[in-house]
Amino acid sequence: MGAEQQDVSQETLDPTNWETTRKLMHQMIDDAIDYTSNLRQRHVWEQMPLEKIKQLETPLPQESTNLEQVYHQFKNTILPFPMGNIHPRFWAWYMGSGTVSGFLGDFWASVMNPNLGGGNHAGHKVEEQVINWIKEMMRFPPSSSGLLVSGGSMANFTALTVARNIKLGYDVRQKGITKETANKFVIYGSSEIHSCNQKALEILGLGAESLHKIPVNADYTINLATLEDQITKDKNKGLVPFAIIGTSGTINTGAIDDLKALSNICKRESLWFHVDGAIGAVAVLSDIAKPQLAGIELADSIALDLHKWLHMPFEAGCVLIKNHEAHKNTFSVIPEYLEKHDRGLGSGSDWFSEYGLQLSRRFNALKIWMSLKEHGAKKFGRMITKNINQAHYLGRLIKDHNQLELLAPIGLDIVCFRYHVNYLSEEKLNAINREIKLQIEEQGLAMIGYTSLQSTYCLRVAIANHRTRYEDFDLLVNAILEIGVRISGSLNS
Amino acid sequence: MGAEQQDVSQETLDPTNWETTRKLMHQMIDDAIDYTSNLRQRHVWEQMPLEKIKQLETPLPQESTNLEQVYHQFKNTILPFPMGNIHPRFWAWYMGSGTVSGFLGDFWASVMNPNLGGGNHAGHKVEEQVINWIKEMMRFPPSSSGLLVSGGSMANFTALTVARNIKLGYDVRQKGITKETANKFVIYGSSEIHSCNQKALEILGLGAESLHKIPVNADYTINLATLEDQITKDKNKGLVPFAIIGTSGTINTGAIDDLKALSNICKRESLWFHVDGAIGAVAVLSDIAKPQLAGIELADSIALDLHKWLHMPFEAGCVLIKNHEAHKNTFSVIPEYLEKHDRGLGSGSDWFSEYGLQLSRRFNALKIWMSLKEHGAKKFGRMITKNINQAHYLGRLIKDHNQLELLAPIGLDIVCFRYHVNYLSEEKLNAINREIKLQIEEQGLAMIGYTSLQSTYCLRVAIANHRTRYEDFDLLVNAILEIGVRISGSLNS
Ligand SMILES: Cc1ncc(COP(=O)(O)O)c(C=O)c1O
Ligand SMILES: Cc1ncc(COP(=O)(O)O)c(C=O)c1O
Repeated sequence: MGAEQQDVSQETLDPTNWETTRKLMHQMIDDAIDYTSNLRQRHVWEQMPLEKIKQLETPLPQESTNLEQVYHQFKNTILPFPMGNIHPRFWAWYMGSGTVSGFLGDFWASVMNPNLGGGNHAGHKVEEQVINWIKEMMRFPPSSSGLLVSGGSMANFTALTVARNIKLGYDVRQKGITKETANKFVIYGSSEIHSCNQKALEILGLGAESLHKIPVNADYTINLATLEDQITKDKNKGLVPFAIIGTSGTINTGAIDDLKALSNICKRESLWFHVDGAIGAVAVLSDIAKPQLAGIELADSIALDLHKWLHMPFEAGCVLIKNHEAHKNTFSVIPEYLEKHDRGLGSGSDWFSEYGLQLSRRFNALKIWMSLKEHGAKKFGRMITKNINQAHYLGRLIKDHNQLELLAPIGLDIVCFRYHVNYLSEEKLNAINREIKLQIEEQGLAMIGYTSLQSTYCLRVAIANHRTRYEDFDLLVNAILEIGVRISGSLNS
Repeated sequence: MGAEQQDVSQETLDPTNWETTRKLMHQMIDDAIDYTSNLRQRHVWEQMPLEKIKQLETPLPQESTNLEQVYHQFKNTILPFPMGNIHPRFWAWYMGSGTVSGFLGDFWASVMNPNLGGGNHAGHKVEEQVINWIKEMMRFPPSSSGLLVSGGSMANFTALTVARNIKLGYDVRQKGITKETANKFVIYGSSEIHSCNQKALEILGLGAESLHKIPVNADYTINLATLEDQITKDKNKGLVPFAIIGTSGTINTGAIDDLKALSNICKRESLWFHVDGAIGAVAVLSDIAKPQLAGIELADSIALDLHKWLHMPFEAGCVLIKNHEAHKNTFSVIPEYLEKHDRGLGSGSDWFSEYGLQLSRRFNALKIWMSLKEHGAKKFGRMITKNINQAHYLGRLIKDHNQLELLAPIGLDIVCFRYHVNYLSEEKLNAINREIKLQIEEQGLAMIGYTSLQSTYCLRVAIANHRTRYEDFDLLVNAILEIGVRISGSLNS
C-alpha cells in the first residue's frame, strides 16, 4: 500500500463518533414528533423568504461540515417551509398527508437500504406480500402480477406499455412500431382523463393522437353512447381500437366512470381495459364508496396510488396486471450479470426489475407494510368515508350560503365551487375567486386547489386528509365569504 | 352530522398517544445506530428461514395493531435479513452502501413529505440546488437542465426520450412514430452497454433493433473504427443514425469508452451524444479517475447514479440535459388544475414534472443535499479513489497467486477473475467458480458478483463500498483459495 492509501484506508462515510450522532438523532426524533404533533398550530404554507432561499444557493460543497451544523441549517432553512400537504387544512391537487408509520417505514428502508430490483432477501418478500395485499384489496386474482412504482403516472405508464405490447404484438419490443403498426392503434378515455395518460402515450411512440377523448356526461363520467359510436367510426376508418382507460376518480371532480359498462364494451370489442384509479381505487376500502367502484375488479390493469388517499409518504404507487405473462413479457430483460443462481442472494422469485422500467428500486414496500399492519384496512376505510362525508358537509355549507355556488356534482371527496355575486361578470368572478384562493393560502389558513370547468375558475377542495376536522370547513367558508365580500366590495366602489 | 360522522370525526392516522410513539422512536434510533455501527460483526447475507417467510404471509390486515408490535415483528422478521449491500464486504452487482446522513435525509423527506412534482416551497429550491451542484460536478453549463430520477435506468430512459423527440421531430409527441419515421432511426452503443438502454428503446417504440451494438476492444471499450464503419453502412442503407451512447463505467468490467472520440463523431455526424455514467460519472470527483472521464462534459446528456458510488440510499439517480428547451419540450404537459399562479404555492419555477415521466415525486433531493453538505465533494472523491486503489490491490493479490486468474483489465473499481486450475476443463472451472461464489455468500463472509465474459464464468468484485478495508481482500482471497482447493480436490478424487 502506498502512503496515500494508508491515509484514507481507515476513512469512511460513517460518523467518526457514533455517540455524537446518536445524540443528534435523538434530538431529531423529538423535533420530528413536535413538528408532526403540532401541525395544526402552524400555517399551512408560507412563502419562503428571499434571504433563506439565498442561503441555499452555494457552490458544490467541497469540504466536510459536521452533521450538527448541516442539521441546524436544515432546521432553519428547509423544515419551516414545507409544501403543507401534511397540514389538516391542505386540500389542493390530490395528495396524501403522510403518517408516522409511513415515515418510520421510510427511515428503516433507508437504514437497511436493500435494492428491490430483486434478489433473495426480506425486502423482496415484503414487497411480494404488500402486492398480494393490494391484489386482495382490489379483488384481483392471486395469479395476477403487480409492482410498486413511483406513483400514478408510472402505474398508468406501465400498464399502457403492457397493453401496447400485447395488442401490437410482442415483436414491438424487437422491431419497434413499424410501418404496419404506425398511426393505427387507438385508445379511449374521457375528456376528464388525467394528463399523465397522454404523456405515457407520447412516450410510448403512439402519440397523443392515439388517445381519443370522449365527451363526458353532466356528472363528468364518460359518455358511453359517444364512446361506442367513436369505436365504430374508428373501425370503419381502418383504425384498430386497442384499449379503454376508465377513470375511477377524476382529478377535477372525482367522477367515476361506469366501470362495468366499460368492461362490457372491452369484452365485446376485445380491448384492454385499464382503470386509472390513482385517486379512487383505494376507496373500495370505504363502505360508502365501494358500490360506486363496482366493476373495477374486471379491469385488465389498475393504476393506484398509496401516497394519495392512503397517506403513505411519497413515493408509493402500484400497478396490477391480470395477465402476469403479458406483464413479464413486456419488461423482462436479463443481462449476464443478473442471471439467477439456484442458491444465495441471486436466487428466488422473479426480479421486480422484470416487471417495470426500473432496475434499482427503493424499499418502498416497507412503509406500506408498516402502515397497513398498524392501521389495518378498516381504519383506512373509515378515513376515506370520513373525507367523503366531509365533502358533503362542505357541500351543505355551500348550499346554505347564497354567495357560494357548487359548480359540479361532488365526486368522492372533491368539491368544486366558487364565490358568486350575481351582478359580476364571469371574468370578474374568475379573478375574484383566484384572489380568494391566493389570499387564503397567503394567510396560511388553508390550501385549496383550483381548476377550470368550462372556463370557469373553480375553487377545488380535495379532501384526501386524515387530519381534517369538520369544523375546518366552517373556518374555510367564513374566510371565503369574508375575503369575497371585501374584494367584490372594493371592485364595486 | 350523522352519528357515524361523529364517531370517526376525531379519528386520524396519527398516534393517539404521542408520548408512547416518541418512546418507540427513540428506541428505533438506538437500534438503527447499533445496526449500522456493528455491520462488520454481522454476516453479509443470510438465507431467510422458511418460518420467518411464513410469518410474513398473511391476508390483508383488517384491524389495527399497535405500532410497538408492528415494530417488534419488523425487528424479528425483516431487519435481520437485508440484502447486505451496506456491509463492508458486499461487492456484488453495483450498489452503494448507504450513509447516515442519507438515511436521515430520507427520514426528514418523509416527515415533511412534500410533493416534488413542483410548487413554491423549500423542497423545490433544494432540488434545484442539488441539480446545480451535479451540473457543477459534471462541468455542465448552468443553462442545462436536470432532474432527479429513480436511478440509472430512468435517467437513461429520460435522456433517450429527449434524443428521440428532438431527432424524430417534436410532432412525435402528437403523431407518434409514423410510417415515415418507423424502422429508420438507429442509435449506437458498445456490446457492453447496459441492458436498461435496450429496454428504454423498446418502450420508446424504437425497438431493440434500433440499437446497433458495436464490438469492443480488448479493454472492453467501444471499437471506434467499427462504429464509424457501421454508421456509414447504415446511412448507405437509408437508415438515419440519431445518437450514440457512450458508457463511462460498464457494468461488467468498468470500462470507459473514449468519450472525446465519441463526441467528435457525434459532432461530425450531427448525432445526440448520450453518456451512460450510472457507474462512473461521479468518479470525476476522484483525482485518479478524472482524466479517464475526459470528454464527459461534451455530452448532450448524462445519466448518473448517486445511489451507486456516492452511496445515497435508494433511490437517487439524475439526468442532465444540455438543451434545456429540448428537455422541457419533451415532457411538459400542463392540465388546468396544475396551471401556475403568480403568487402562492402554485407559483415559482417550472415544475419538475415538466421534465420527466413522474408527476408526484419524492423529496429525494434532501438526502443528497444533506450528504453533499456533510461530506463534501472531496471526501466522496477520496472514497472513490480508495475503491479504485483497492481494486488494484486485489488485482495484485490475484497476480500473486497462481490459482487466481485475472479475466479482464481492471476498469475503475471492478475486478473480474476466477479460481483456476490448469488441468480442469472450462466447464468444470465455470462450475467451481460458481460454487466458490455461492459458498462464500452462504458463509456470510462476503458477497461477490458474477458475470460471464466470452462464456467464462467470472467472479466479479465491484468495490463501490466506503466501508471496505484493504484487509477484507486478504480475507476474500484466502477464502476463495481454501474453497477452491477443497472443491477441485473433491472433483479430482
Ligand atoms: C386520476 C389521476 N391519475 C394519475 C395521476 C398521477 O399520479 P401521480 O401524481 O402519483 O403520478 C393523478 C394525480 O393526481 C390523478 O389524479
Ligand atoms: C452502466 C449502467 N447503466 C445503468 C444502470 C441501471 O441503473 P439503475 O440500477 O440505477 O437503474 C446500471 C446498473 O447497474 C449500470 O451499471
